[in-house]
Amino acid sequence: MAHPLDLTAIDPALGQLLEQELEEIVRRIETQVASDFAPVNTLCLHVGRYHGKMLRPLLVMLSGMAADGSLTRPRDAHRTMAGVVELIHLATLVHDDVLDEATFRRGGETVNRLHGVETSVMLGDYLISNAFHMCSTLGDPSINVLLGRTTNTLCEGEVVQLHHRGDLDLDERTYMEIVSRKTASLISSACEIGALLTRNEPAVRQALAGYGQDLGVAFQITDDLLDLEGQEETVGKPVGRDLAKGKLTLPTIRALAAAGEPLRSRLVDIIKRHDRGDLHQVLEEGGWLDAARVTAADLVNSARQRLDVLPDSPARAMLHVLAAGVLTRRV
Amino acid sequence: MAHPLDLTAIDPALGQLLEQELEEIVRRIETQVASDFAPVNTLCLHVGRYHGKMLRPLLVMLSGMAADGSLTRPRDAHRTMAGVVELIHLATLVHDDVLDEATFRRGGETVNRLHGVETSVMLGDYLISNAFHMCSTLGDPSINVLLGRTTNTLCEGEVVQLHHRGDLDLDERTYMEIVSRKTASLISSACEIGALLTRNEPAVRQALAGYGQDLGVAFQITDDLLDLEGQEETVGKPVGRDLAKGKLTLPTIRALAAAGEPLRSRLVDIIKRHDRGDLHQVLEEGGWLDAARVTAADLVNSARQRLDVLPDSPARAMLHVLAAGVLTRRV
Repeated sequence: MAHPLDLTAIDPALGQLLEQELEEIVRRIETQVASDFAPVNTLCLHVGRYHGKMLRPLLVMLSGMAADGSLTRPRDAHRTMAGVVELIHLATLVHDDVLDEATFRRGGETVNRLHGVETSVMLGDYLISNAFHMCSTLGDPSINVLLGRTTNTLCEGEVVQLHHRGDLDLDERTYMEIVSRKTASLISSACEIGALLTRNEPAVRQALAGYGQDLGVAFQITDDLLDLEGQEETVGKPVGRDLAKGKLTLPTIRALAAAGEPLRSRLVDIIKRHDRGDLHQVLEEGGWLDAARVTAADLVNSARQRLDVLPDSPARAMLHVLAAGVLTRRV
Repeated sequence: MAHPLDLTAIDPALGQLLEQELEEIVRRIETQVASDFAPVNTLCLHVGRYHGKMLRPLLVMLSGMAADGSLTRPRDAHRTMAGVVELIHLATLVHDDVLDEATFRRGGETVNRLHGVETSVMLGDYLISNAFHMCSTLGDPSINVLLGRTTNTLCEGEVVQLHHRGDLDLDERTYMEIVSRKTASLISSACEIGALLTRNEPAVRQALAGYGQDLGVAFQITDDLLDLEGQEETVGKPVGRDLAKGKLTLPTIRALAAAGEPLRSRLVDIIKRHDRGDLHQVLEEGGWLDAARVTAADLVNSARQRLDVLPDSPARAMLHVLAAGVLTRRV
């Protein structure tokens, strides 16, 4: 399995271990979602192509190992929960593609494109349901509660983001709150669950949950930048969707808040025309893209500092590299 | 609270108790879904109008009481799980309205009509997530597993139904399998969960699960008949949606399977024209509506017979009345 993050280049031994584990996690997900109804399996097979970097499963496993520096491979519960968070993530991709009216993802057509919005809605529900079912097989109610709280938060973030579509007065605080909920909550919980399955100690849980929270917000800021600046062929999904769907992101929010006339009117006009090229140019000239990159970098630094309370280990070192990688991602 | 099933007319003491319990369950659902984000609360308040007969919460409580004839009121766990199954049901209504492009429900506009498909998708997800979270608070992993298995089954039924949209060769066996999964699974689990929270004895669980299964299939058959014959003002939601959405239901499936030419061609033409009046007339003249009613009645009888293993009690008596009521429902 050629992993987009090239884990073996970071650490040959740990990288190889993790790549094997990710293959096992993909198998577990396939077993979990297998149905006696052929149409369901066809759809799940298609969604199997949506696995990308598998960042969230990696974070469950690495957090689990980093929580106790002497743990040299993930425990079985880590594998199960890695599958669970990936399933939740896949479900959000399927439903997000409905929201974004996206036609392709990872080089293939989306479920909504191939089978319609209705099937996408139900398939997403099927994946969410399977995630909760898979989580329940662990037999630890406290993890079910944590997962449920996380997905509540994630959905709140999505609902509030929709509520602010086309809202040119969206402020930075609300943007950060939305991103924190819709993206960072699941990434943070992936880290926290990994930790608590190894060593349920508040300081360790908090450190890794905080790492995931900061990382998640940074990840979304760079994701938004890719939507604005990236090329579809590289990113592997449609770009410019934020603008097309009236979603204001950090550089635009800051530019609008700071702009006097006539710049503000020009920005409003560009946004209403959905002109990605013009928006990019204005934001770049104003330094707003660089400012967003600085914010992402600050968050990555904060994430990395949170790892200081953990013992030194190859897993912790890889968490550092993954965090740094958020700032240079092209996919 | 004026209950559409008029429980106090069936049994004044038990009816009054159940109506109070339903009020408490609505309060618990409200507490569960409350968010610190105002737009989320506005949407949940709207969905609060979708509570109808609250059949599934009633079944949790009545099954719980009928499982042990001496239990005179639901336990706290019954109330929680009654809220959980109602939340799952509300989520399916929100997502079903997207699938059916329905514009009103219970006399008010639907979420998709008021706020768009995207918000409906995410709101449904929020409700599903809250249902699993609420279930997890019980602290019993086996119930989480059962709920997860149930919603997996429910979603499979929905996916396969979508797969067969417009399929004029859909056979009765597949229709029954779809209905069994998409509708009866949750009703059956409501009964089974109610039972096992009182008395986790296989024969009792099976009896009540079987009651719910038969009842659920009968319920969907009569629901399909209402979609074909009912008046929107009475039913409280749009009718004729099955035909408009290419969903074949029991009378049509049987008529198509039995019809020789030229009747078959006439039926196909009617279905393609979405002509509800003509379809109704042909099916009524052929006796297919009555035949479907006979099937529903057989299922209701089967459901009621399953209650024979339970001790006589007011709760069991009310389960009998609820089952019989499926055959005369107008809403």
